[in-house]
Amino acid sequence: MHTRDLIDLAELKPSELQDILRFTGFIAQNPQYYRGNAEHKIMATLFYEPSTRTQMSFQAAMLRLGGRLIGFDDPDNSSVAKGESLKDTVRVISNYADVLVIRSPLEGAALAASLYSRCPVINAGDGGHLHPTQTLTDLATLDNAVGRLDHLTVGLCGDNLNGRTVHSLVKTLSRYAGNHFVMISTPELALPGYLLDEITRGGSTYARAETLEEAIPALDVLYMTRIQKERFASVDEYERLKDVFVLDRAKLKHAKSALRILHPLPRVNEIAVDVDDDPRATYFAQTEYGLYARMALLQRVLEHTDRAVPTAPADTHKARCTNERCVTSKEHYLPRLFKETDAGLVCRYCEQLSMNNGQ
Amino acid sequence: MHTRDLIDLAELKPSELQDILRFTGFIAQNPQYYRGNAEHKIMATLFYEPSTRTQMSFQAAMLRLGGRLIGFDDPDNSSVAKGESLKDTVRVISNYADVLVIRSPLEGAALAASLYSRCPVINAGDGGHLHPTQTLTDLATLDNAVGRLDHLTVGLCGDNLNGRTVHSLVKTLSRYAGNHFVMISTPELALPGYLLDEITRGGSTYARAETLEEAIPALDVLYMTRIQKERFASVDEYERLKDVFVLDRAKLKHAKSALRILHPLPRVNEIAVDVDDDPRATYFAQTEYGLYARMALLQRVLEHTDRAVPTAPADTHKARCTNERCVTSKEHYLPRLFKETDAGLVCRYCEQLSMNNGQ
Amino acid sequence: MHTRDLIDLAELKPSELQDILRFTGFIAQNPQYYRGNAEHKIMATLFYEPSTRTQMSFQAAMLRLGGRLIGFDDPDNSSVAKGESLKDTVRVISNYADVLVIRSPLEGAALAASLYSRCPVINAGDGGHLHPTQTLTDLATLDNAVGRLDHLTVGLCGDNLNGRTVHSLVKTLSRYAGNHFVMISTPELALPGYLLDEITRGGSTYARAETLEEAIPALDVLYMTRIQKERFASVDEYERLKDVFVLDRAKLKHAKSALRILHPLPRVNEIAVDVDDDPRATYFAQTEYGLYARMALLQRVLEHTDRAVPTAPADTHKARCTNERCVTSKEHYLPRLFKETDAGLVCRYCEQLSMNNGQ
Repeated sequence: MHTRDLIDLAELKPSELQDILRFTGFIAQNPQYYRGNAEHKIMATLFYEPSTRTQMSFQAAMLRLGGRLIGFDDPDNSSVAKGESLKDTVRVISNYADVLVIRSPLEGAALAASLYSRCPVINAGDGGHLHPTQTLTDLATLDNAVGRLDHLTVGLCGDNLNGRTVHSLVKTLSRYAGNHFVMISTPELALPGYLLDEITRGGSTYARAETLEEAIPALDVLYMTRIQKERFASVDEYERLKDVFVLDRAKLKHAKSALRILHPLPRVNEIAVDVDDDPRATYFAQTEYGLYARMALLQRVLEHTDRAVPTAPADTHKARCTNERCVTSKEHYLPRLFKETDAGLVCRYCEQLSMNNGQ
Repeated sequence: MHTRDLIDLAELKPSELQDILRFTGFIAQNPQYYRGNAEHKIMATLFYEPSTRTQMSFQAAMLRLGGRLIGFDDPDNSSVAKGESLKDTVRVISNYADVLVIRSPLEGAALAASLYSRCPVINAGDGGHLHPTQTLTDLATLDNAVGRLDHLTVGLCGDNLNGRTVHSLVKTLSRYAGNHFVMISTPELALPGYLLDEITRGGSTYARAETLEEAIPALDVLYMTRIQKERFASVDEYERLKDVFVLDRAKLKHAKSALRILHPLPRVNEIAVDVDDDPRATYFAQTEYGLYARMALLQRVLEHTDRAVPTAPADTHKARCTNERCVTSKEHYLPRLFKETDAGLVCRYCEQLSMNNGQ
Repeated sequence: MHTRDLIDLAELKPSELQDILRFTGFIAQNPQYYRGNAEHKIMATLFYEPSTRTQMSFQAAMLRLGGRLIGFDDPDNSSVAKGESLKDTVRVISNYADVLVIRSPLEGAALAASLYSRCPVINAGDGGHLHPTQTLTDLATLDNAVGRLDHLTVGLCGDNLNGRTVHSLVKTLSRYAGNHFVMISTPELALPGYLLDEITRGGSTYARAETLEEAIPALDVLYMTRIQKERFASVDEYERLKDVFVLDRAKLKHAKSALRILHPLPRVNEIAVDVDDDPRATYFAQTEYGLYARMALLQRVLEHTDRAVPTAPADTHKARCTNERCVTSKEHYLPRLFKETDAGLVCRYCEQLSMNNGQ
């Protein structure tokens, strides 16, 4: 990888993403070949919010490579909660570890951490912003279980407006040729316009479907996500529509036999339990591909062994990001980094448009 | 072992139990001989209720074999609490691990987990139901510190009505020849009738004693448990009896020199601290035998390397278990499994009689 | 080491301290040479209060030596909270581990633990009493980053009255030749008199300064600590003085180029963030020396392989310690151990003068 850290999957060159996916496939075939590759290396998990699933997946990946673990997953129960800055925590823990895996409710926290770390930083989720290893997991699952990332008809069923993993998957698949997306949700929960633009710009196409039943026969891939009850327009709407977006065995009858059903998990009830034993249910295997993808990623970032603290970048503008969920709203020493776009200044941490440009 | 999982010690064939106990004895003599036997293996601890003692004992056992650890011990601090089913958690984590150790406040949770796991499951306590590795610990202690499991006079002092570990020990020792049990408790806290039946059916015998003092001279083994204050019939009764069931140095005066005092720990004050230095106090050594017993057990279950998800069994009856503490009361997708007995249908998960048979 | 345990740095012979510091320096140069030296060994962390920083430092040190980890850091979430005595916990966990690292809010807890442990005990902080590995970290930092422990002019800026790490550092440096201490604090927060006596008794000298600015030009070492707001004599005093004891880039202008700035961390705002990139800022490197110092210490204590439980010492007096923060106030079975001094009986656990001598 040309970057030391994995903050955003979009920063990887296509050849680098390809390399990690191919490597993941090799590992999936013979995981035991790689079991000494992180020996004597320490991975620190800095989980500022609990996420047992993601944390255990990283931990298992590191252990499968022969590595070791330190970390915390409950900042209330730690000196981290005693007002210490993210910078200080990262400066100290990167003295102990060879790779940091960070999860935070604050958008841009992983990028902020990478500015002060002596070792590579992997973003394990920064608020509603990015979760690149989930997307890597999804891609590795398609690559291995479907066999390709292009010329796919991909159904996106559930909350396409707020689903971070859906957005990231759409963005990445739009870079491959000939994909067609079928969005299956209420109009209120449709994909944001900027993503529709990305789809068409990349040469992919999309359509909308009002029910899962109507969409399912054409699909190669069905990516399910949960719609939270409070995201429906009204209680009436919820009662009327709640079953329309639930996958069950009956709806699967008209699906292709080669369909692959993915879900980022945890699920609640958007996939009925009776689907689990259908050979098209791929969501549990998906977590196994996630393990191998993280093993591949860890090996790649551990190739960076320079332990110098990066030189902190200078402010690019005097503006302050106005997004309250941005890491800069809590960590005031962070350099002010913005990109100039047609719409105005965009914060480099959270990628939101700043509302007080140039002040 | 003929079963992949260890849910209930009673499922082991006598020869299998014998094998594990003998293996435990070998390990106790040279623990370092076994230190690479779980290399590259991962044990996941799924502790739905905290139990530091049990968890650390399993963890130390796995580490002493060269294995690695993942897990959680605080479900409130995890995605597990976000409404995910036990099934999904087990399906996912068994993708990461080679053996699952599960603890739950729900009766039958370990059996339920084993239906969906790709790797062996060990029951580390399922509510008030079973705790087989505690019993294995007790047996290993007798086998090593006393030298036999038969022809023993075993005092059971404390809460014999509610003590899960006492019940399990009595059940297992009743299968060996010539044991005699002396129950030392209030009448209200006597052993349940079905266990008295098991004792006599197996050819063992029992007697009752009202005080520890009266019983102690005849004992080869004294198994102490705590009586919770609220378990006495009244406050008066508690005040009158509380010291009768406390072991101290004075009461030990008339005991055999070969007596072995066991306790599942933690103790509160039912054994006075001045007993700790008596050579007959075996309860701390017991925890060390527990370590070796778990090392033996882990090695045996890790011999099962088939990673297929078991085929879920079909419902045996239409009944629902009516026990609120049964895992089926929370996890509704579980197959309904019952045994028919003279008294009615008995739930296979919690082993309680179901109250709405056949509905 | 002539003692098995590290409870108080003052118990080490000068040659032993010297050995550990020299060993630390070797490790700092080639940490990878030592990476198998604790293979197959288990370190248990018994953290009765959370201290993520200290715990992770010990964990990383043990892992860097190839060792393994068990432990807890949240007693509320453990059977430890269910009324189990420290003695029982230590007796059990020392059956599982090769070294115990204990942290407790109770003064003397590590000494108490060492009386019942089958393996070496390291004090990772016992209330406001001792924190020997922090002092070891400080000394290793001076030894490596400054190059000597004698003939130094050491500024102590912050809360010199309550700072446990400051006291311990002063005590130890007073044993080396020709050190000069400059105390930079409010009069209310000056070093306690008994420490001033230790300084002069050892042949070192001291002076007071009212501001950081005034003191800084002469310093070889500046040891910064935080003053909590409520430690100032009044709110007015706080407002008047709060900036006087804050180190920033401006105040650094008149400092020597060879100055080394230390801080036990975490900091709040007593060192401005703009100091971090100054080459004299040594507080992050200090945490790395702390890692190497703990690696050295762990190797030394792991040389003790006798696993016998120590013979508990007998009461030296009938007195009870009257310090409510002393471990003996909670753990009543502990032997009553006192030293006779001119001022009266001093408790061996918490080193406080007992108020009811001889009762």
